[in-house]
Amino acid sequence: MSIDFSASLDDKADMTLDEAMALDRADPLAPLRDRFSLPDGVIYLDGNSLGALPRAVAPRVAAAVTGEWGQDLITSWNVHDWIDLPARAGEKIARLVGAEPGSVVVADSTSVNIFKALGAALRMRPSRPVILTEAQNFPTDTYIAQAIADFAGNRRVVEADAAGLVAAMTDEVAVVLLTEVNYRTGARLDMKRLTQAAHDAGALIVWDLAHSAGALPVRLADAGADFAIGCGYKYLNGGPGAPAFVYVAPRHQAEAMQPLAGWLGHATPFTFSPAYEPAPGAARFRTGTPAVLSMTALDAALDAFDGVDLAVLRAKADALFDLFTRYVADNCPQLELLTPRDPGQRGTQMSFRHPQAYAVMQALIARNVIGDFREPDIMRFGLTPLYLRYEDIYRAAGTLCDVVNSGAWDTPQFRQRNKVV
Amino acid sequence: MSIDFSASLDDKADMTLDEAMALDRADPLAPLRDRFSLPDGVIYLDGNSLGALPRAVAPRVAAAVTGEWGQDLITSWNVHDWIDLPARAGEKIARLVGAEPGSVVVADSTSVNIFKALGAALRMRPSRPVILTEAQNFPTDTYIAQAIADFAGNRRVVEADAAGLVAAMTDEVAVVLLTEVNYRTGARLDMKRLTQAAHDAGALIVWDLAHSAGALPVRLADAGADFAIGCGYKYLNGGPGAPAFVYVAPRHQAEAMQPLAGWLGHATPFTFSPAYEPAPGAARFRTGTPAVLSMTALDAALDAFDGVDLAVLRAKADALFDLFTRYVADNCPQLELLTPRDPGQRGTQMSFRHPQAYAVMQALIARNVIGDFREPDIMRFGLTPLYLRYEDIYRAAGTLCDVVNSGAWDTPQFRQRNKVV
Repeated sequence: MSIDFSASLDDKADMTLDEAMALDRADPLAPLRDRFSLPDGVIYLDGNSLGALPRAVAPRVAAAVTGEWGQDLITSWNVHDWIDLPARAGEKIARLVGAEPGSVVVADSTSVNIFKALGAALRMRPSRPVILTEAQNFPTDTYIAQAIADFAGNRRVVEADAAGLVAAMTDEVAVVLLTEVNYRTGARLDMKRLTQAAHDAGALIVWDLAHSAGALPVRLADAGADFAIGCGYKYLNGGPGAPAFVYVAPRHQAEAMQPLAGWLGHATPFTFSPAYEPAPGAARFRTGTPAVLSMTALDAALDAFDGVDLAVLRAKADALFDLFTRYVADNCPQLELLTPRDPGQRGTQMSFRHPQAYAVMQALIARNVIGDFREPDIMRFGLTPLYLRYEDIYRAAGTLCDVVNSGAWDTPQFRQRNKVV
Repeated sequence: MSIDFSASLDDKADMTLDEAMALDRADPLAPLRDRFSLPDGVIYLDGNSLGALPRAVAPRVAAAVTGEWGQDLITSWNVHDWIDLPARAGEKIARLVGAEPGSVVVADSTSVNIFKALGAALRMRPSRPVILTEAQNFPTDTYIAQAIADFAGNRRVVEADAAGLVAAMTDEVAVVLLTEVNYRTGARLDMKRLTQAAHDAGALIVWDLAHSAGALPVRLADAGADFAIGCGYKYLNGGPGAPAFVYVAPRHQAEAMQPLAGWLGHATPFTFSPAYEPAPGAARFRTGTPAVLSMTALDAALDAFDGVDLAVLRAKADALFDLFTRYVADNCPQLELLTPRDPGQRGTQMSFRHPQAYAVMQALIARNVIGDFREPDIMRFGLTPLYLRYEDIYRAAGTLCDVVNSGAWDTPQFRQRNKVV
C-alpha cells in the first residue's frame, strides 16, 4: 500500500492551521498517537534522539519490577521467559528492518554491537587490513572502528566521503561500516548499491541503522547485508539507553565468531562448560545477562508498531517533511536546509543550518518546541508520524520562523545566560 | 564495629524455632528487611543469583518511566542528570568495595566489563603473552579471556588451580583474572596476597567481585588491585540483568585504554569530535548510552545499603551460616558441605553436594525454599542478611533435611516429570 500523503499539500504553499488540522482528520495513521503518552503542550521533534513513551511501557515495566522480579524472583528466567527476551524483541525488530526470522537479537549498546559485528567480520577476512567507513559517520562508529583496529594490531581505518566510498572499496578492505542515515544531515546512503559494491570488492558490510530502524522501510535481506546494528531508543521508542540490536545474515550465522564471547552467547550457558561453544543463530551475538527491565520497556514499546506498514509511515513522514520545509522556505528562507529534498536520499529528519543555531534551539525549547542542536550550527528536527500530527508540524514551523525572524532568541540576557558570543 | 553474632549459637546445637526467632528480635540489622518487598511464605536463598526487590525501586523506576522519560523526554539527560547516573551509582558501589572516590563506573554487563579490563591490562603489558586465570573460574570469565586472547592473536590463556596460582605467575603473565568468591563452592581467594604476588611478578590483576560486592567487606584500594568488575544484580539487588560495574585504580586512570572506546567514554561526547579522546578517570570505561531504566533500578537498590556496615552484615551472614550448617550436620549429615567453614576462606553462600541435588532442589522450591542447582550435583544457598532472618534459616534448614531424610523428592511422578534417572 502506498498513500500519497503529499498530494494534498501541492497547492497549499500558504496552508492555514485549519487546513493542517483537516489533514489530521483525514490521516489514517492518526489513531496511532493514542499509543503514546505525551506531555501536554509540547511539540516533540526529537524522537530521532529519544523516542516518546508508548503507553504500553509503564504497566509492562511495573509488572516486571513488582510481579516478575519482586514476586517470582529467580524463577522468572523460566516462568516469564526472561531468557528469551532478547530473541523475542529481536523478532519484532526483524520485521521492521526486513530481516529474516531468527537473525536479529537485542543486546548491549549500539557501540558494543558495532564492536561485535566488526570483530566477526574481521575474522572472516583475516588477510585484509582495512575497515572502511564514511568520514561523516557518527563518532561512536569511527571510534569503535579505530579501537578495534588498534586492538587487533594489524588493521587500520580508512575514511571516505559518501561520494568516494565505492572507489575506496579496494581489495584491502575487510569490512565496510556505514550508517544508512546520517545523524547530522539526515542524508541517506543507498544500502543496496553499496552492499553490492562491497561484495564486488570481496568485502563484508556492517550497516548502522540508528536513524533508519522504525523510521522507514529497511530491507536488510533484500539488500544482501552481512551484519547490521541499530539503536533501541530513537525511532523504536524503547526508552533512554534501551538495549540495541544486531543482525547477522543467516548465511553467516554458523561462521561468525564475535569477540565478546560471553556466557549468554554460549550454546548451553547453564551447563557452565569450560569451553566456549557459540549458540546457533544470531544468539551467539549475545554476551552477558540482558538488562531485563530496560529490555522489557523496549519489547513493550515495539508493540506500538503493531499493524503499521512502514511504507505508509514513511509516506506520512514525507508529507510532514514537505509541510515543514515549505513553510520554512516561504516564511524564514534564511534557514538553510541541509537535508536532501529527494525522499530517496534522506531519512525522516530535517536539519537546518543557522549561525546561531544553539541559541535559536534554546528559544524554541523555551516555547515547547523540542528539537536538538548539533555542533557547530545545526538544528535537527525528527519526524515521527506514530505520534506527530500535521497540526504539530504546522505550529512548530511557525514557531521556528517566528523566533528566527523576530530575533527573539537574541536578547542580552539570553546571550549572557547561554554564553552566545 | 564488630558484633559476634555467632556467640549465642555456641551452645545451641539443638536450637528451637523459638530460639531462632529470639535471635531475630535481638538482631540490630533486623529492621533492614523492611527495605525489601518479599513474596509471602517464601524463603529466598538465591540472592547470590538475583537479589530481592528493594522497596525503593518500583517508585523510582515508575518515576523514571512516566515522569522523566514520558514528560521531560530528551531534556532528562540534563534535568534529571541521566548523563552522570553511571558515576553516581558507581560512587555508591565504591563505598561497598573499598574503592577510591571516582574509581568506579556502572556500565554494560559483567562480561563486557571483563573484556574492557583485560583489554586495558593487555595494552599495559604489550610483551607478555599470558592471561592467567583460575581453572574453576566462572565460565564467562574464561570465555572472555579466551576470546580476547584469540582476538589479540598473540596472547594465550593459562589456567591454574587456586593452590597453583602464585606458582603460575611467571614473567610471561600480563594479567591475572580472578573471581574472589567462587560461584560453585563459595570458596574465597586471598585478594591482598594474590594481588601482591601478581605485582611481584610484574603482572596486573583484574578482580571479579560478582559474589563479593554487597556480600562482604571488599578492600580494593587496600589490596592494591589494578582493575575490578562486578555484578549489579546479585548481592547489590539491582534487578534482573542490572548493569555491572568496573573499577580502575586511580594510578592507572590516565593510562588505561580500554578497547570498547565508544562515544560516552569520550572526554566530550557531545562535541562529536572525529578523534577519540578518553574521558578522565574511570569514565573512560563507559562505552555506549547507559540503560537508564535498569540503571535507575540499581541506583535506587543501592540505597538499601545506606548506613550499613558491611563488616556487621558479614558477621550476621556468618551467624546464619553457622546456624544452617550446624543444623544440617546434626540432622542430615549425608549432605556434604563444599564451602570452607573458615569465614576467611569463603563468601556468604553455602554449597552442598548430593547425588540427586537437582531433584532435591526442585522439591525444596516446591516447598517455597528457593536456592539453586549447579551441575552436576551442587545445591547453592545464598545468605543475604539485609532481608534474611534467623527464623528463615532455621526453617529452610529444617525443610532441606526433611526432604533429604524422607526422600520426598524421590517419587515416581517426580522422577518422570524431572527426568531423574
